[in-house]
Amino acid sequence: MAHSLQFLSYIVVFLFGFLNSVASEKLLVIPQDASHWLSMHMVVEKLGQRGHEIVVIAPEVNLMLKESKYYTLKTFPVPYRNEEFRKRFEFFAHYFDERSFLERIIAGTTEYQIVTYLIDLYFKGCKIFFQNQEMLKYLKECRFDALLTDPALPCGVILAEYLAIPAVHFFRGYPCGLEYKATNCPNPPSYVPRCYSYNTDQMTFPQRLQNFLIGYLELLLFKNIYTRYEPLASRVLHRNVNIMELYGHAVIWLLRYDFVFEYPRPTMPNMILIGGINCKKPKKLIQEFENLVTSSGENGIVIFSLGSMISGIPLKKAMEIATALGSIQQTVLWRYTGQTLPNLAKNIKLMKWLPQNDLLAHPKTRAFVTHAGSHGIYEGICNAVPMVLLPLFGDQMDNAKRIESRGAGVTLNILDMTSLDLSNALNAVINEPKYKKNIKRLSALHLDKPIHPLDLAVYWVEFVMRHKGASHLRPAAPNLDWFQYHSLDVVAFLLVILPSGLFVILKCCSFCCRKCCTLKGRFKKM
Amino acid sequence: MAHSLQFLSYIVVFLFGFLNSVASEKLLVIPQDASHWLSMHMVVEKLGQRGHEIVVIAPEVNLMLKESKYYTLKTFPVPYRNEEFRKRFEFFAHYFDERSFLERIIAGTTEYQIVTYLIDLYFKGCKIFFQNQEMLKYLKECRFDALLTDPALPCGVILAEYLAIPAVHFFRGYPCGLEYKATNCPNPPSYVPRCYSYNTDQMTFPQRLQNFLIGYLELLLFKNIYTRYEPLASRVLHRNVNIMELYGHAVIWLLRYDFVFEYPRPTMPNMILIGGINCKKPKKLIQEFENLVTSSGENGIVIFSLGSMISGIPLKKAMEIATALGSIQQTVLWRYTGQTLPNLAKNIKLMKWLPQNDLLAHPKTRAFVTHAGSHGIYEGICNAVPMVLLPLFGDQMDNAKRIESRGAGVTLNILDMTSLDLSNALNAVINEPKYKKNIKRLSALHLDKPIHPLDLAVYWVEFVMRHKGASHLRPAAPNLDWFQYHSLDVVAFLLVILPSGLFVILKCCSFCCRKCCTLKGRFKKM
Repeated sequence: MAHSLQFLSYIVVFLFGFLNSVASEKLLVIPQDASHWLSMHMVVEKLGQRGHEIVVIAPEVNLMLKESKYYTLKTFPVPYRNEEFRKRFEFFAHYFDERSFLERIIAGTTEYQIVTYLIDLYFKGCKIFFQNQEMLKYLKECRFDALLTDPALPCGVILAEYLAIPAVHFFRGYPCGLEYKATNCPNPPSYVPRCYSYNTDQMTFPQRLQNFLIGYLELLLFKNIYTRYEPLASRVLHRNVNIMELYGHAVIWLLRYDFVFEYPRPTMPNMILIGGINCKKPKKLIQEFENLVTSSGENGIVIFSLGSMISGIPLKKAMEIATALGSIQQTVLWRYTGQTLPNLAKNIKLMKWLPQNDLLAHPKTRAFVTHAGSHGIYEGICNAVPMVLLPLFGDQMDNAKRIESRGAGVTLNILDMTSLDLSNALNAVINEPKYKKNIKRLSALHLDKPIHPLDLAVYWVEFVMRHKGASHLRPAAPNLDWFQYHSLDVVAFLLVILPSGLFVILKCCSFCCRKCCTLKGRFKKM
Repeated sequence: MAHSLQFLSYIVVFLFGFLNSVASEKLLVIPQDASHWLSMHMVVEKLGQRGHEIVVIAPEVNLMLKESKYYTLKTFPVPYRNEEFRKRFEFFAHYFDERSFLERIIAGTTEYQIVTYLIDLYFKGCKIFFQNQEMLKYLKECRFDALLTDPALPCGVILAEYLAIPAVHFFRGYPCGLEYKATNCPNPPSYVPRCYSYNTDQMTFPQRLQNFLIGYLELLLFKNIYTRYEPLASRVLHRNVNIMELYGHAVIWLLRYDFVFEYPRPTMPNMILIGGINCKKPKKLIQEFENLVTSSGENGIVIFSLGSMISGIPLKKAMEIATALGSIQQTVLWRYTGQTLPNLAKNIKLMKWLPQNDLLAHPKTRAFVTHAGSHGIYEGICNAVPMVLLPLFGDQMDNAKRIESRGAGVTLNILDMTSLDLSNALNAVINEPKYKKNIKRLSALHLDKPIHPLDLAVYWVEFVMRHKGASHLRPAAPNLDWFQYHSLDVVAFLLVILPSGLFVILKCCSFCCRKCCTLKGRFKKM
């Protein structure tokens, strides 16, 4: 059934394209680089295929923001060079550095440092962008119908306000909780785990306490990253800007969430859930990979990839992993770009690149060893492959926890794990039927959708362009002060002012009564 | 664009039907009678057309629950007769009774009496149903995949639990707020108007105070209607039953809401919004009506209907209305089943029945005078016809307020209004362009959906049947006590226990220090 639905959604999309290719609108895109662009560019290309006029703005120094026949790429000069930029990205490999116990405890701080190191660079780029009068004049003259941006950094958010066009935010939760704060979405810390907490939706009291406190730390994180943009935005928009208020102006939030993977929670009407948007229909494997898979026989294959952000892992760690992979019966296709590994077991095939989705879709695939990036995890879910999760940074620990709590994978700490841990985990997810059963259930639920997430995302961007916004989906909450929103003034009135008033009236009455009685008494005496 | 989407959704549904006609599942339906059945039966018939085996259970005495080739109707005997049943329904006409000022103030009480008068009868029916061992045995043996019910009364809710099958609730908010309580959906009284409050989402302090208090009255209403079902449910299920907990077991809530009509607010993942489900593709008018519409010339027509629940209105009120309708230039098609009206103006055509949706869809239709029932209002929105709203009871006042606050209609109190009020209101919505402009905007937004609400409802019922539930959409909130849900224990810990603990530790430390100092002093003295 799920497949017939997918087939139907393809028909619908084809017909959409055919019928609407004339009604083209103008879209401005301000993306983020690296893995953030992986699924956003799918939406942008699809919109381009459907005949819309699209301009993508990117810094001239970038990793993945390349040209395409479906959009016009406009780059702007930035005050840093390619070498410096790549060097800062390579900092991600520092996760594998040997660290003392104390350093490990403050690993979060290290991650924070690496991320802010990059954010600093992007901030410089954004400042330069808003000084580029020629570019701003061109964008104004284009008269776009909408702006699509990844709001992990607010350059696009400010630009939408500057150009006075409706903004669609394409997002997956970094920095934490932003989408809920900006949309006034209730976010109870009692059962909605905060990011970096590694909690599930079932928490003990200490976990709930931790979750509650992390909520406030998220606010600090937000302030730390974004406050620097406020003077810039105020200068550009010629008024005092509160950056969170600006985020709240987004008309639609396209969120890469799905409740097969995320824990069920409240949402707002302008949140459109498009988790699994990156799950493509698998293509036939190219011959090289087809041969490898076929030759794996009954045992099948295991896919191993730590994603595109980690270019190399230390030789010692790689050797440990190789020992574990050599101990299992499956052929392992390992996306590996590090130093040459000596004495590699015959079942391990190192590759610079893998057609990951096509391989995961192959019936001979038995397990997926992943760094637990959200794109990879959704591919694992779509193709119903049980996972061994080796999270590294960002949201990956939380992602891994979600899959583990659903019984569809085993999480290991890549820094601490031994070869035996990894081979045990692999043998478990391959041989214990519960993992396959659970991931098949998740996959069936995830794929059973009335419309494919990619088509849904395209639909809502077009909706915003057609109607020049979606203000009917915006709640009245932002018009209230925080104490009004929580009805604290009403509660205060009922608890304090009303009883006080009643008390005063009662006192006055009793005073009057007493006066009357006294007067009566006097009259009687007289 | 919106029309091409609708066209595409028809193609999809046709293809769905073709592809899935073999994969039939078994559905049990426990509906409510009267207007509640109007759109639910569309879903049930569509599911029947798609090849599912459907059994609809109805009391043998009912208003609208009739046989169809798309489902099997099973009736059960009830301890009341047709005459008594219809007499109780006719009580709705008592809204037009002449009333003193005091009686009007307590009009809510009258409405409440009428409704409970009906509810009493249905409760008797439900009790008898659960004594019908033959019926229960038959239903058990059928092994249904899911149960679809309108949970305005809980007979179906209890039956789903008895048969241990997943329940889909098809609902539109009576009694108030039930769907939010049962699903643990945040429902801030600061900007989400409560029903019977006539508030919008923009409230003054007194309105917010009133809204806050109504929230608690809703709880009382709920208790009053449903508590009587608890002993019955406990007997049937052989355990102590909390009826709200039972409501919380529903796996999907199909809610007849749409944010073009309702005010934007938080929702939960298992709430599927299908507002406007009753908007059918208009059919060509039958000749009699086509002639009337054509002969209306440039001025066009006005549609007047107070819905199916009001069989007759008092002659005096009808005459007042006729005077107003006679004063406008449009031809008025009035659905009227009361006493004969003398000296009727030529532009007024009285009809026992109107093809309402087809007439509203006609380009010559200038206005819609309606009792503001949700079905009629959605037809008005779908066909972009500005409205004059004459709400009578139930949710109709709130519905009218919503349309009025969107600038798409004028609300009048049918009991108090004069002929002049009505003709002024009609002239306003017909001649002032803002009303047409606003309803056209609402209509365009409402119709622009990736999938038609009827197909969406069918999709989710089938989803539940395919997967035997939808537990992945259920939040963890019901596992928490109310104080845990609101993190009150965490706040108490942080505000009281933690500082107290720290205070004790500090005191101990200072005590020890002082002891040490004293000892030191003594040693020094020694």
